[in-house]
Amino acid sequence: MNPPFQSVAIVGLGLIGSSIARAVHERLPEVRLTGYDLDPAVRERASALALVDRVADAAGEAARGADLVIFCVPVGAMAAAAEAVAPGLSPDALVSDVGSCKSFVAEELRRALPEARIVPAHPVAGTENSGPDAGFASLFQGRWCILTPDAGADASDVERLSSFWAGLGARVEVMDAAHHDVVLAVTSHLPHLIAFTIVGTASDLERVTESEVIKYSAGGFRDFTRIAASNPAMWRDVFLTNKDAVLATLRRFNEDLAGLEQAILADDGTTLFDLFARTAAIRRGIVEQGQDIGKPDFGRQSG
Amino acid sequence: MNPPFQSVAIVGLGLIGSSIARAVHERLPEVRLTGYDLDPAVRERASALALVDRVADAAGEAARGADLVIFCVPVGAMAAAAEAVAPGLSPDALVSDVGSCKSFVAEELRRALPEARIVPAHPVAGTENSGPDAGFASLFQGRWCILTPDAGADASDVERLSSFWAGLGARVEVMDAAHHDVVLAVTSHLPHLIAFTIVGTASDLERVTESEVIKYSAGGFRDFTRIAASNPAMWRDVFLTNKDAVLATLRRFNEDLAGLEQAILADDGTTLFDLFARTAAIRRGIVEQGQDIGKPDFGRQSG
Repeated sequence: MNPPFQSVAIVGLGLIGSSIARAVHERLPEVRLTGYDLDPAVRERASALALVDRVADAAGEAARGADLVIFCVPVGAMAAAAEAVAPGLSPDALVSDVGSCKSFVAEELRRALPEARIVPAHPVAGTENSGPDAGFASLFQGRWCILTPDAGADASDVERLSSFWAGLGARVEVMDAAHHDVVLAVTSHLPHLIAFTIVGTASDLERVTESEVIKYSAGGFRDFTRIAASNPAMWRDVFLTNKDAVLATLRRFNEDLAGLEQAILADDGTTLFDLFARTAAIRRGIVEQGQDIGKPDFGRQSG
Repeated sequence: MNPPFQSVAIVGLGLIGSSIARAVHERLPEVRLTGYDLDPAVRERASALALVDRVADAAGEAARGADLVIFCVPVGAMAAAAEAVAPGLSPDALVSDVGSCKSFVAEELRRALPEARIVPAHPVAGTENSGPDAGFASLFQGRWCILTPDAGADASDVERLSSFWAGLGARVEVMDAAHHDVVLAVTSHLPHLIAFTIVGTASDLERVTESEVIKYSAGGFRDFTRIAASNPAMWRDVFLTNKDAVLATLRRFNEDLAGLEQAILADDGTTLFDLFARTAAIRRGIVEQGQDIGKPDFGRQSG
């Protein structure tokens, strides 16, 4: 079977962009890859790593002649990236992205490229590391990639993009951009907001030195620090561009947390126990569906 | 060098108790071990696993003749466990525990055993799994164990207990019980409270199904589910017995979270970026000090 695209341009060569490049090389070796990054140091590193067949000196140059252009930049930088490729974009090229907020990105891409074929996408995968050295070919293996075509999108474009992501090892789902933004507010954006907050709170407490926070982090805190080490620019943009869904989810969380605070104040052990017994079932579902490993402590220790 | 104790009784054979038993077998094989658990099924399993040299049918019987008795039960069950061993306890026996709240436990043990030698302890280690099958010998390897002797404790008792925990591979620290409770509120109790809350919130949201929460959990949520799968009875007791420190820390967290909410509402990207850039440094410290592994994504994926 031929790959759905002959030539793919990756604009932005950080964790996700460089992982796409590595996965294409490994799994779709006949695809020709071009790449670009706004940061000259990243372009240089991408050349040294041979991430793509050609590193271009401008976004438009990378996109010229490509039949798929994927923007792998922070959500707030999508519009500028799209404007930069506009002059060289072939009329048949499919435009996509990997941003974590889909309603905002869809609007930005449509405004910048009013005539283009556009199917936004979001691979739900990542690590706490950033940059071209952080990527790896198996990042998308078994993870979900959500496509959010708008009502006017061409079905064959959705099909080709699905096939591309499936070719990289992902499982593909199609949903409405607004629903995506609510689902991800719960499963990704709020957890990150909470993790950033608690790590900040812990390091600020004047009665506990930073070294004690680090020293005794194995009691639970260290799990939060992993996602609080994620790319700051990417996450700033996520919270500013999925504001409504994030704030609505945060309000629910605050209500629930206030409820637990009251239970603690009132010595209401039953309420605490009932919640804590319920949450374990969610974990089992995640492990059973292959979205996490079942080893205790994330397999950090050998049993 | 002789081990600091000839005969050790473990009361409570769950994750921590059974891990102590396994670590003693492996690293201090000359120590004689007895054990007891309130749950007959756990006693039976402990016998089948040969966790200890002798599983007793009563706590007092397990403790009789032991020169170290360690209570490995939820904090709220410490008093009952201590009362149960009182009749058989030898006057020279050292009494200790592994509870996560030290001020409360110290009072409970002192009230139940007014004449005993007592040095409370807290190994800062664990996994999300519970029960006698969940333990393993290397659980304490490189982790901290905090001893919180009161002012009247015998220095040689503190020394012997330190030597015991060092023998199991732990690094030992001695501090005041009240300070311990504040430090652990930050590094362990608040993170658990938050994780339990957010997992509950996510599974309750009517606009997002539980299957979606599970499916797209790789975006960050799954990290929270691990610690929200921890033992419900243990954690209920922690929040009820370290109430003041937990609630004080929670207030700080709520203030910080409200600050971020305001920043999002006000489109204040600078405040968000500055916090997110700062929290990554804490993660680096934890990895550098050997309290977590440095592999991306906790080493879940092979790079």
